Amino acid sequence: METDQRKSEVLCDLQRNGLKILQSPEHFCFGIDAVLLSAYAAEHIQPGSRVLDLGTGTGIIPILLSARTKAAQLTGLEIQAECAEMARRSVQLNDLGDRVEIVTGDLKDVPSLYAKGSFDTVTCNPPYMPAGAGLKNPAGPLAIARHEVLCSFGDIAAAAAHVLKPGGHLCLVHRPFRLPELFETLKDHRLEPKEMQLVSPYADREPNLVLLDCVHQGRPGLRVDRPLIVYDAPGRYTQMTMEIYYGAQQPNRPCTPEGKEDS
Amino acid sequence: METDQRKSEVLCDLQRNGLKILQSPEHFCFGIDAVLLSAYAAEHIQPGSRVLDLGTGTGIIPILLSARTKAAQLTGLEIQAECAEMARRSVQLNDLGDRVEIVTGDLKDVPSLYAKGSFDTVTCNPPYMPAGAGLKNPAGPLAIARHEVLCSFGDIAAAAAHVLKPGGHLCLVHRPFRLPELFETLKDHRLEPKEMQLVSPYADREPNLVLLDCVHQGRPGLRVDRPLIVYDAPGRYTQMTMEIYYGAQQPNRPCTPEGKEDS
Repeated sequence: METDQRKSEVLCDLQRNGLKILQSPEHFCFGIDAVLLSAYAAEHIQPGSRVLDLGTGTGIIPILLSARTKAAQLTGLEIQAECAEMARRSVQLNDLGDRVEIVTGDLKDVPSLYAKGSFDTVTCNPPYMPAGAGLKNPAGPLAIARHEVLCSFGDIAAAAAHVLKPGGHLCLVHRPFRLPELFETLKDHRLEPKEMQLVSPYADREPNLVLLDCVHQGRPGLRVDRPLIVYDAPGRYTQMTMEIYYGAQQPNRPCTPEGKEDS
Repeated sequence: METDQRKSEVLCDLQRNGLKILQSPEHFCFGIDAVLLSAYAAEHIQPGSRVLDLGTGTGIIPILLSARTKAAQLTGLEIQAECAEMARRSVQLNDLGDRVEIVTGDLKDVPSLYAKGSFDTVTCNPPYMPAGAGLKNPAGPLAIARHEVLCSFGDIAAAAAHVLKPGGHLCLVHRPFRLPELFETLKDHRLEPKEMQLVSPYADREPNLVLLDCVHQGRPGLRVDRPLIVYDAPGRYTQMTMEIYYGAQQPNRPCTPEGKEDS
């Protein structure tokens, strides 16, 4: 297969509908969080709807959602030009140009980029860590993906609240240690947390990820699902995780994308 | 044993240090939530400290904490005079008058009852449900225990923030569906959620209780523990629950206090 692949980039088979994605270890490789989020968000995306992914990186979320949903339009917004350009090539590579669009832009500019209430669903796999002081290379792409260098969680909530219709969904993944602050910020922007699922690496370990579904202008009342357990032995996914990754048709040898989850 | 037990009251053996408690089905019988909360709070109570239980009901929490901790002074505040009077007799029954005090009063009056920063730890097993419109008997003791008829969660947070020293702990139990609002209210009162444990009846069921530890003027950052599973078969406690109830010396036939958990 002919690809528009550059040196230092790797082409990863997404094991779903033949989808492939370009990644660059210098930038950022998607992790299990992006896969879990796309499966989680897919539950809340109606056929024909418009979806915006904030800080799309490699474009992994809109590309996976193109297979998992019947959304009419999937837009990925990415501030880093080089990263957005690579995501655009992944879209072309999968021949998804009619449904997936990658836009280079700052999510803080969303009010000038998009009309109020113009999307049904917003997804976001944001930087998990506060900006902090000890960053070696705060302008580097890895720091930008992991730390709130270029945007805060408040910026993300503000962007989502602007573009979402009343009743529209914001689906996101984050770290449990930030839950109090996330809930406070979401409620400040009238994004009501409606569903939460904690994710633990093993059944006897503390959760290290949390999936959230929020409804714009929704009524209070959170459903807490039982936790998602990722592995039942080192390197071996649980049945729950296998179904999220591969659905019904499960390959013999699951691939474990490594990346953000270990950061 | 001679007790000051009235008609319609039942005397329950707490299976810990020979403690007993008076309960009245017309009022309210303590449930597993009070037992779990006392075990959870005990972890944060230093020897010699002063503890206030807001809305103490039967007095179950200060009475259990007298056995579980070396707190110097345990105060239970209860608005319903009849209930407070019964709790006071339970204190006498257990000969705990030197450490446990039951005060009849409204937690909304806490700023006039107690000096700012006068307690190390506050505990609360509050009404879980909003006041609501459909209550048959909103002035009845069961409605007062279960619904926010006489106080809101904001009133509880305000009382705790007033009496707690900086660095003091608020330990509470609540329903997971209210978490977003709890976190928002707690943060409004500078009660930072630091630890959270969800409680599920069975491993494959959604959580129906949540235990929280908050620190007055604490720094943001929540530790989410792995969930507590109560039963491994109908009527049979898990090892985790057995240890909370009975510690090392476990009886052959565990008693299952029924009450608030099924409300």
